[in-house]
Amino acid sequence: MQQHDTHTAIADMLISWNDGAARKSLVEFICKVTEKGSPDFVPPLERIAVFDNDGTLWVEQPMPVQAFFALDRLRALAPQHPEWRETEPFASALKGDLNSALAGGESAIVELVMATHAGMTTEEFEQIAADWIATARHSGTGRLYTEMVYQPMLELLTCLRANGFTIFIASAGGIEFMRPWTERVYGIPREQVIGSSIKTKYELRDGRPVLVRLPELTFIGDKAGKPVGIQQHIGRRPIAAFGNSDGDFEMLEWVTSGAGVRFGLLIHHDDAAREFAYDRVAISGKFDRGLDEAPGRGWTLVSMKRDWKRVFAFEND
Amino acid sequence: MQQHDTHTAIADMLISWNDGAARKSLVEFICKVTEKGSPDFVPPLERIAVFDNDGTLWVEQPMPVQAFFALDRLRALAPQHPEWRETEPFASALKGDLNSALAGGESAIVELVMATHAGMTTEEFEQIAADWIATARHSGTGRLYTEMVYQPMLELLTCLRANGFTIFIASAGGIEFMRPWTERVYGIPREQVIGSSIKTKYELRDGRPVLVRLPELTFIGDKAGKPVGIQQHIGRRPIAAFGNSDGDFEMLEWVTSGAGVRFGLLIHHDDAAREFAYDRVAISGKFDRGLDEAPGRGWTLVSMKRDWKRVFAFEND
Repeated sequence: MQQHDTHTAIADMLISWNDGAARKSLVEFICKVTEKGSPDFVPPLERIAVFDNDGTLWVEQPMPVQAFFALDRLRALAPQHPEWRETEPFASALKGDLNSALAGGESAIVELVMATHAGMTTEEFEQIAADWIATARHSGTGRLYTEMVYQPMLELLTCLRANGFTIFIASAGGIEFMRPWTERVYGIPREQVIGSSIKTKYELRDGRPVLVRLPELTFIGDKAGKPVGIQQHIGRRPIAAFGNSDGDFEMLEWVTSGAGVRFGLLIHHDDAAREFAYDRVAISGKFDRGLDEAPGRGWTLVSMKRDWKRVFAFEND
Repeated sequence: MQQHDTHTAIADMLISWNDGAARKSLVEFICKVTEKGSPDFVPPLERIAVFDNDGTLWVEQPMPVQAFFALDRLRALAPQHPEWRETEPFASALKGDLNSALAGGESAIVELVMATHAGMTTEEFEQIAADWIATARHSGTGRLYTEMVYQPMLELLTCLRANGFTIFIASAGGIEFMRPWTERVYGIPREQVIGSSIKTKYELRDGRPVLVRLPELTFIGDKAGKPVGIQQHIGRRPIAAFGNSDGDFEMLEWVTSGAGVRFGLLIHHDDAAREFAYDRVAISGKFDRGLDEAPGRGWTLVSMKRDWKRVFAFEND
């Protein structure tokens, strides 16, 4: 009877989830690791959960949000860089022709990121990112990006926290791009954000110490980089991992292969009506191997269409 | 009256501190940032304090503890490396002649660190470090290193936590060398440890994922590296910093130059009777610039001899 009550209480926190296999697996996992006397009980200090960001907590189509930030920033800086009008990848990017801009592959991406994300102090960059996120809107809905977060996942974050979990983001996105707003939007404080980063250098400017952002990547938090970043930041293997694309595969593999009860969940974006439908051939958020292997590995596969009562909080406005 | 009570309550937690200027400055700082209605009130999320480890929380003489770990490890591995008997810096290090071993400067240190800290998985290294720290003893006292921690500083950690602070270690020591025991010894969990690190690589061994430690330094958490590591891990400037050597100078400079009330403290090891006396010409824990500049920068200077009632918990045994 007591067990039944706990299950019900947890399920009740996940009100935007339909009553199906996905929610059931979440509820069972949380009960198993938190109920006193459970053979699978995990002490609070070890109740660490990691979440991907793009496509797992907020929208990543038609492009990852940070790519729009980079483009806006490129346009803002263009007047100071007349040479960009005739140099790739800048010329194409400024014309809005991203396919041509990215024809140069990874080095083109790095060039665009460095031109827009480096060269200022950490405090200046924080202000730039905070100002942008305060007004930038999604092209499809006209909503602020910070409203384009998945309501069922916000409920899950709240539910996990209420059950003693500590939540980290493990994203391929820039760590300093996310930190200015993750606390307000997800309730995840800065020190619990893991992401890609560039080199910084300590120096004095007019006697005042600053950290200057240099154009050199030091860490890419994607794919096999996710377990590396998780170990570096947390130093302990999480017991639950949540993602949506093949960029999250190694993170789920690492987390769910630890000893004891483990939980892995991947979101399948199959809801063109309420959000987007994409998987095996997507450019952002390619989901191929995970889609095939999730069942065999015991990972929960969430169908956005089937498992989520609503996707965004504003749907019922 | 209420203020007086709070001051007394905080001072009472610092029972191994003598009633002098150092303890007074600590008590005043904690009161200022925690008392409701105080113009200097700081919300708990921003109450971040960073502590150096070697010489600030535990002993660093006659050498940093991790150097003894490296030497023990070198001896344990020597039978598998007959070539070390004729190659520097290994030959001298194995003979216990550290001066000759380190004649090669920084590259000699890196060679010794890599030979002893890389080449295994993160889990294997954790076990090696945990096993070593469980039995390794200080040459002077014969005590376990984990007993060679400063009792006044343990009280300070407890007092800060009781007042809503989150505590991070920011050390030049190896992050994975510290993590296996900081929780038990200091109450500081793994995810709140910042330190020097080497590259790791995710790979599958017999289908089981591991992180392999590679012989490549990725970060040195000393001097100007401390603010860099703090920003990378925490993403927010701490409001208080505690150290003991010039390796902590930039950390204190960074922390105390932020807006609002800030606190910096440096411990002067001037107690040859109860611990060690060293400062301007020390090899480990050189303390020169900090000793000169602390007063002018408003940093609290702790005299171990004058300010600490006892240094180690076992003194009164």
